[in-house]
Order: sequence, then structure tokens, then C-alpha cells
Amino acid sequence: MAKRGVIIVAGGSGRRMHSALPKQFMMLGGMPVLAHTINTFSEALPGADLVVVLPEEHIPLWRNLASRFDIAAHRCVAGGKERFHSVQRGIEALSEGVEHIAVHDGVRALISKRLIVRAALAAESNDAVIPVIDVVDSYRRITDYGSEIFPRSELRIVQTPQIFSAQLLRRAYQQEYDTRFTDDASVVESISGHITLIEGERSNIKLTTPEDMGWAEWLLAHKE
Amino acid sequence: MAKRGVIIVAGGSGRRMHSALPKQFMMLGGMPVLAHTINTFSEALPGADLVVVLPEEHIPLWRNLASRFDIAAHRCVAGGKERFHSVQRGIEALSEGVEHIAVHDGVRALISKRLIVRAALAAESNDAVIPVIDVVDSYRRITDYGSEIFPRSELRIVQTPQIFSAQLLRRAYQQEYDTRFTDDASVVESISGHITLIEGERSNIKLTTPEDMGWAEWLLAHKE
Repeated sequence: MAKRGVIIVAGGSGRRMHSALPKQFMMLGGMPVLAHTINTFSEALPGADLVVVLPEEHIPLWRNLASRFDIAAHRCVAGGKERFHSVQRGIEALSEGVEHIAVHDGVRALISKRLIVRAALAAESNDAVIPVIDVVDSYRRITDYGSEIFPRSELRIVQTPQIFSAQLLRRAYQQEYDTRFTDDASVVESISGHITLIEGERSNIKLTTPEDMGWAEWLLAHKE
Repeated sequence: MAKRGVIIVAGGSGRRMHSALPKQFMMLGGMPVLAHTINTFSEALPGADLVVVLPEEHIPLWRNLASRFDIAAHRCVAGGKERFHSVQRGIEALSEGVEHIAVHDGVRALISKRLIVRAALAAESNDAVIPVIDVVDSYRRITDYGSEIFPRSELRIVQTPQIFSAQLLRRAYQQEYDTRFTDDASVVESISGHITLIEGERSNIKLTTPEDMGWAEWLLAHKE
């Protein structure tokens, strides 16, 4: 019955966190990072089919951790070698009936319900919707002879959730893996789907470093 | 006698901070943001000629604020219309004898002494040194027909301090202002100076939003 499927990709090994615990399991405002992500999606898209992709060896750890917190219903599936393969497993695990599939990074735990709803609405009339934000820094591009200024007005930073028509995404993920696939939009684009950009959120970052976690704690505490 | 000149550009109007107080004057770990920047440069480059460029109307405010903290000796000069003009005023204010000039954003207050020293050493054998960092996000480039994936391996985020031979920088800033000048390297490049890239620091961000300030507080508290 679920018209919407959500794949939360939580395959990180946590190497960059200087911590044995993968970052999606770290505590943030009294709850694991991944729990925030799951609950926000569940509240934003009631009735959605929710699949979390984890490294196989972390599934027992997550089940144990999850049982101690108030986390919305979700299924866990084991991820693959690359992110691409993990998303493939997620797609296979979703119920056949879903019409739209959202793919989200598990460590983007600060995402707002508002952005999820906005992306889901945009996906009702567009095949592939991805949130992007403007860049604030100056950039240089590495060239064969050195480097050169790159016009920042042309650049956008890509975020998730990326939401696709289920048919398009399933078709795109039947391809062979290519190292140029850095996100789901790039997989879809390679079978020439048109990508619709919507406005993302500056705070919707990937929590990857200890500093990010400190920042996230501060943000949660000042959210009201 | 100072062989090195430092121009700290603190011309921001603070609009993005949701605060009447420009961000360089906000408190961070018990001191104004700008005080951290000035003191770190003073400690990293002892004896350097230190000039702070401020909007003219903020100079009395800054002097008043600065008198209440332990801040290294520096001179204040009034900025111009654009950042370009502010740097011009800074260059004019520096003593004639300086051989190298570092230009730094006042709100990059989390810069380490280590990076400043590393950049200054690199500038002794290179005309134009700028710190850059790798990007971690995925990027898209806006094109005439929509947007496309942009290979992140080619991109670097530009930081400050940018350090130049004084002769080259003075010559570059004799040009007419051009809107393509987004940083000092771009000004120097337009008279075809060669730019040397060195490794920057992820924490050397521009403090521009309330969230950045929360993050900076957390970082200072966990620095030891």
C-alpha cells in the first residue's frame, strides 16, 4: 500500500570520526544519529516503506541499539561493496508497489521534515528531484598546467534526499557499476533522465567529523 | 623593519548573522572574533606590520571594544566599497619596506598558527601562495540547458591567508576593479602571476552564520 519508498544508506565505516563506533550510531541529543534520520522521514512521509541499508556486520549492533530508543518502524538490509551496490539492495528490498523512491544519506540527520515534504511534492511531477545549495566559498579548478579560478555562481552542492520515480530508479540501477557514479542522480543521468533541482538546506550536512558532531549538538540544542 | 605585512580584512556588514553587531565583533570564547584573528597572526609572525581594514563607521566601535581585551598591536584603516578597494587601502597603509604581504579574512578566526607559518615559509620561495582544501560534497554545474555532475576531484575550496610578494601584489592592485575579482589570487592572476597552492585547514572557515558561531565555540572548547 505504501506509495513511497525511502532508502536510508548508512554504510559508512566511521574511519573519519576517530572513533570505533561508525558515525551513524553515535549519540546526538540523546539518540543515535541514524534514529534522528529515520524518525524525521517517518514523520514527514507517514506510511512510507522505510528501508535502512547497513554493513552486514553492523545489523545486530543496530538492532540492539535501536531497541533501546523510540524509533519508527523500518527494515534493515545488508549493504554492498560500494554505495551503488547498497542502493541496489535497498531498491530490491522495497515493496513492489512504491511509485517514488527517496534515497538519503543516513548521516544527514539534521534534515528538516519541511525539506523532505518539499522534495516529495516536487517528485510527484518530476522524475528526478535533488536538493542543492549555493556555494559560499571561492573555488579553484585543478588543470593540467596548475589551477584556475572557477566561477562559483555555476556551482551547486548536492544533498539528499534525492527522489525518483520508482520505475526510472529501478531501470538506472540495472546498469553495471561505474566509478563516475558519485550519487544517485549521476546513476539516473547516465540513462539520460532529466534532473530537477530544488533548494536544499545549509544545515543538511553529512556528519563526518567530530567537529560536525559538536556543531550538530549545538544546532539541536538551539533548534526551538 | 617589518619584512612581512599582514592585511586583515574585516569589512563585513553582518547581515547574515541576524544580529546588529557585525560578526567580526561578536564574542567567541570570551573575546571578539577579530581579536582571535589578530592575536594568532601576531604570534605566528612576530614583528609583522599588522593592518586591520574596517568599515569607517565601525572603527570607533572596534577601538572601544579592543581596549577592553588583550589584543596585539595593530593599526586600523577605513575600507572601501568592495573587498578589492579595502585591500587597496590596506596595501597603502603598510610600511614601504615589507617584502611579503598576507591578506586574510577577519572572520577566519579559527586559523592555526601552524598554517600561517607554513604559508609564510612557502611565500619565501613563491610569488603567490594560497591555501586550499579538497571538497567532500558532490557538485553540479549549472549549464544553459540545466545542470550536470561536476567532477569534485578537480575542485578545491580557496581559503586565506593568501600571501604574495609585496611587489607583485602592489602591481596587481593598481588595476581597475573588476567584478571577476573574488579573491586576491584572482587579482594577481589577471596580471598573470603564477599561483602556488598549499594545503589549507578544514576548520579555517569564514564565520558567517549563527550556526558557525556555535560550531566555533564548540571547537575552541575542545581544542586542547
